[in-house]
Amino acid sequence: MFSCLPHNVGAGKAGGWLAAGARVIDMSADFRLKDPSQYPKWYRQEHPAPGLLAGAVFGLPELHERELQKAELIAVPGCFSTSAILALAPAVASGLVGSDIIIDAKSGVSGAGRSPSMGVHFSEVNESLSAYAIEGHRHLPEMTQELSALGRNGIQITFVPHLAPMTRGILATCYFDLKGSLAQLQDAYREFYAGQPFTRVIPQSPSTKLASHSNLCLVNVSVQNDKAVVTAALDNLVKGASGQGVECFNIAFGFDRKTALEAPIQWP
Amino acid sequence: MFSCLPHNVGAGKAGGWLAAGARVIDMSADFRLKDPSQYPKWYRQEHPAPGLLAGAVFGLPELHERELQKAELIAVPGCFSTSAILALAPAVASGLVGSDIIIDAKSGVSGAGRSPSMGVHFSEVNESLSAYAIEGHRHLPEMTQELSALGRNGIQITFVPHLAPMTRGILATCYFDLKGSLAQLQDAYREFYAGQPFTRVIPQSPSTKLASHSNLCLVNVSVQNDKAVVTAALDNLVKGASGQGVECFNIAFGFDRKTALEAPIQWP
Amino acid sequence: MFSCLPHNVGAGKAGGWLAAGARVIDMSADFRLKDPSQYPKWYRQEHPAPGLLAGAVFGLPELHERELQKAELIAVPGCFSTSAILALAPAVASGLVGSDIIIDAKSGVSGAGRSPSMGVHFSEVNESLSAYAIEGHRHLPEMTQELSALGRNGIQITFVPHLAPMTRGILATCYFDLKGSLAQLQDAYREFYAGQPFTRVIPQSPSTKLASHSNLCLVNVSVQNDKAVVTAALDNLVKGASGQGVECFNIAFGFDRKTALEAPIQWP
Amino acid sequence: MFSCLPHNVGAGKAGGWLAAGARVIDMSADFRLKDPSQYPKWYRQEHPAPGLLAGAVFGLPELHERELQKAELIAVPGCFSTSAILALAPAVASGLVGSDIIIDAKSGVSGAGRSPSMGVHFSEVNESLSAYAIEGHRHLPEMTQELSALGRNGIQITFVPHLAPMTRGILATCYFDLKGSLAQLQDAYREFYAGQPFTRVIPQSPSTKLASHSNLCLVNVSVQNDKAVVTAALDNLVKGASGQGVECFNIAFGFDRKTALEAPIQWP
Repeated sequence: MFSCLPHNVGAGKAGGWLAAGARVIDMSADFRLKDPSQYPKWYRQEHPAPGLLAGAVFGLPELHERELQKAELIAVPGCFSTSAILALAPAVASGLVGSDIIIDAKSGVSGAGRSPSMGVHFSEVNESLSAYAIEGHRHLPEMTQELSALGRNGIQITFVPHLAPMTRGILATCYFDLKGSLAQLQDAYREFYAGQPFTRVIPQSPSTKLASHSNLCLVNVSVQNDKAVVTAALDNLVKGASGQGVECFNIAFGFDRKTALEAPIQWP
Repeated sequence: MFSCLPHNVGAGKAGGWLAAGARVIDMSADFRLKDPSQYPKWYRQEHPAPGLLAGAVFGLPELHERELQKAELIAVPGCFSTSAILALAPAVASGLVGSDIIIDAKSGVSGAGRSPSMGVHFSEVNESLSAYAIEGHRHLPEMTQELSALGRNGIQITFVPHLAPMTRGILATCYFDLKGSLAQLQDAYREFYAGQPFTRVIPQSPSTKLASHSNLCLVNVSVQNDKAVVTAALDNLVKGASGQGVECFNIAFGFDRKTALEAPIQWP
Repeated sequence: MFSCLPHNVGAGKAGGWLAAGARVIDMSADFRLKDPSQYPKWYRQEHPAPGLLAGAVFGLPELHERELQKAELIAVPGCFSTSAILALAPAVASGLVGSDIIIDAKSGVSGAGRSPSMGVHFSEVNESLSAYAIEGHRHLPEMTQELSALGRNGIQITFVPHLAPMTRGILATCYFDLKGSLAQLQDAYREFYAGQPFTRVIPQSPSTKLASHSNLCLVNVSVQNDKAVVTAALDNLVKGASGQGVECFNIAFGFDRKTALEAPIQWP
Repeated sequence: MFSCLPHNVGAGKAGGWLAAGARVIDMSADFRLKDPSQYPKWYRQEHPAPGLLAGAVFGLPELHERELQKAELIAVPGCFSTSAILALAPAVASGLVGSDIIIDAKSGVSGAGRSPSMGVHFSEVNESLSAYAIEGHRHLPEMTQELSALGRNGIQITFVPHLAPMTRGILATCYFDLKGSLAQLQDAYREFYAGQPFTRVIPQSPSTKLASHSNLCLVNVSVQNDKAVVTAALDNLVKGASGQGVECFNIAFGFDRKTALEAPIQWP
């Protein structure tokens, strides 16, 4: 099971830092979930500082920019959650989505971290693609938490991650029953992301390479018969990781949100 | 020989060959669909020999071995259809599947054929993954035809193919509402494929590399909450193409079905 | 912009532009060779404007910065020549090199240009490595011209390019008889490149990834028995192409040489 | 430093097995060198059974088929040595080679073994190419031993291995002064390998993919000015490893040399 960044390292220390007046931007999963009972289930341990969870702000600027400006404790989401939530937030918020959502996500190998293992050995991974954590991945509850907060009705998410033979990139392909027209859905996405500097709704299906080495999340909204199909592509090492941490820092400390994040497009 | 892309070269000639007493094994899409009205819709032309469609046998041995023994005209399915139908046939036949089925398929680049184009240029495809034909792919009607014939109730398939940065391999990840228990579903798969030489139900999620350079299709049956998740992996240049053509030939002409197809496992 | 392949588009027009007072930075091979008789031999045509060759400045800032400041016509070298010349210039200039030099260069596929062809089809190139143009590559005379100008004695270069299964990057591995000690050779390199912003002598053998997405050329100087082995790595789409063009532009027009070229390191 | 297969495991045990009447086919480097004094230098330890070295047969069938028929102890060479020796043996044996030989070898990642490490992590190796062991690789003395035995005059080999971003394959590009004409050299190769089942002299420069998944070694003989350039490609997991072990077994035990080694060509 892959966790985009090591976790539970700072959870015990964050309280001390906050008490000392620091503002904390945490890149791990330690403070992403509001409900302490989720930690034993997904991370196999009690949370060491459950009292801090309610005050932590989920570090996805597209959803929480205003709260991030004053946040003391920021829990930056990783690559899978960022791509999935950005792919689905406008649909859930607009009520145009049915209750069942499928997220089929494909990640490059750097999403598995830098520690050597048989699972990231070049000869094992190259020329191969596979699904993992099919019964349930620990980043699922973050997605459910954030998306549920946007909609009136209950949603049920099925999330299956895949490992693809490339270094960088995530593509999330999302399927749901469309309650309305494609035009309505596309309008909902355009409105939701109007003015957003890094999330762009584009007319064609994005390749992961198109977002590579940038802080962009590229989203396409299409339909096949009566199923909506939304694809979102980002670079798991930028928007899905440190780039988004920098974005949160910029917001929290009053810098322009794009500072240090406007990398030129690199192709190929 | 690539069958993923239709060529319509032989459709006009097949009648003559059959009249002359030949048995025809066609690797293209020319005779896969029973309903002639599907051809203008998906292939943008009238079928030149609609009278032959009813008698053609769909060349998927796991479903049609008996008919293949006497078939005069065999229409061998390609990589996407083979992986999707083998991933879903036992579920549909057993009635354990809900009406809505999602097929999220990932293919290596050789599935796109050998003609040079920007879409298969190494520098464009490497380090990239993308969905295509989101509104509907021409291999969808084959899947619907074959799976519908197995079940009592209507099914609605959503099929989205993806291009992955590898030469060989297809992974089809299939999602559907499970009408029953996981154990029942797994039993249905084991029974359906009992005795099959090339399609194997395995306990772990298959990587495409595990089936690479072989005529195998590897299937895993899992569940996430109340959604069944079935993954099927095969080599699009063997079981999804010429290998399956040889398999049909063996059946049609009375050879052992495995003749010339028992390649040793190659890893990595 | 790719300069690895000559285009001869601007050779006929450059004269007009220069007459009109423009300064020309040419990314092709049109003005790299001083000797007009080389063009029919390597490019299969007479040069359309041989009178301009003598005044053109070879756009390699490490060798020609002063001339570039006032150059009217700049001929920017491509990826192979840049890596090979930078790998060898200090050795030739110091006289520590024997007469025979072997350059074994490995290039990513983007070095072959963007036009689709069987030779850049993902499925043909992936998982494969090969040499080409073994009898002689058209970029050889540039290397000979520039390196010969640095040394007192004749040198004889053997240059064999290879295509490697990656998008970006060139590694030139150079072999020659060492006339002196390793320490003398390393000193010669350090002195030659002292103060250079983009060419760095490093203690370990460089991987192409280490220079990827940057304008850097990384050089290592080692010895095996009495043969010097110098390796140079760069990104063929930056220092070996447009990046170097920008560098020449900066010098020619009085900007800081590093303007727009200080991309952050990207790993992996 | 990469050793194609783990070594020094059986060196202490081989004597016992031989005494018990077994014939030993060793895939490690333990018995490849005739001179015991080389072991401390290249493998950092005294050889535990130096008395066995003289009787061991170097398991390269193209050179030692007759001795292999009766060999009690066979030391099968690995991928780098096999490609380099097969690339150069006819040149050395014919006396058409100068004294200095450069071997620039490029290997796929499986040549580094299966143990996980940062050096074989997909994200580190993908999109990267580098040289290693520039000061001297432990497989160099095998090459020197076997090639020196074929020629009258002394030869001096410089060998630099490279790691390329692919799973399988080795390409050895060899450079030497040609003492004679290209036609003479090509004749020498054709004669030397006449009747050989697995080593083929071909007119074009071989790509590693062309030999992939087979026991073939493909050799091309060319010239650039007065330097001969010989390229040899093989699959490091077959002819450079277990395939060659099987070949030795077949010879030693009287089977047809090609038994179990005639895999069909697989492309791509």
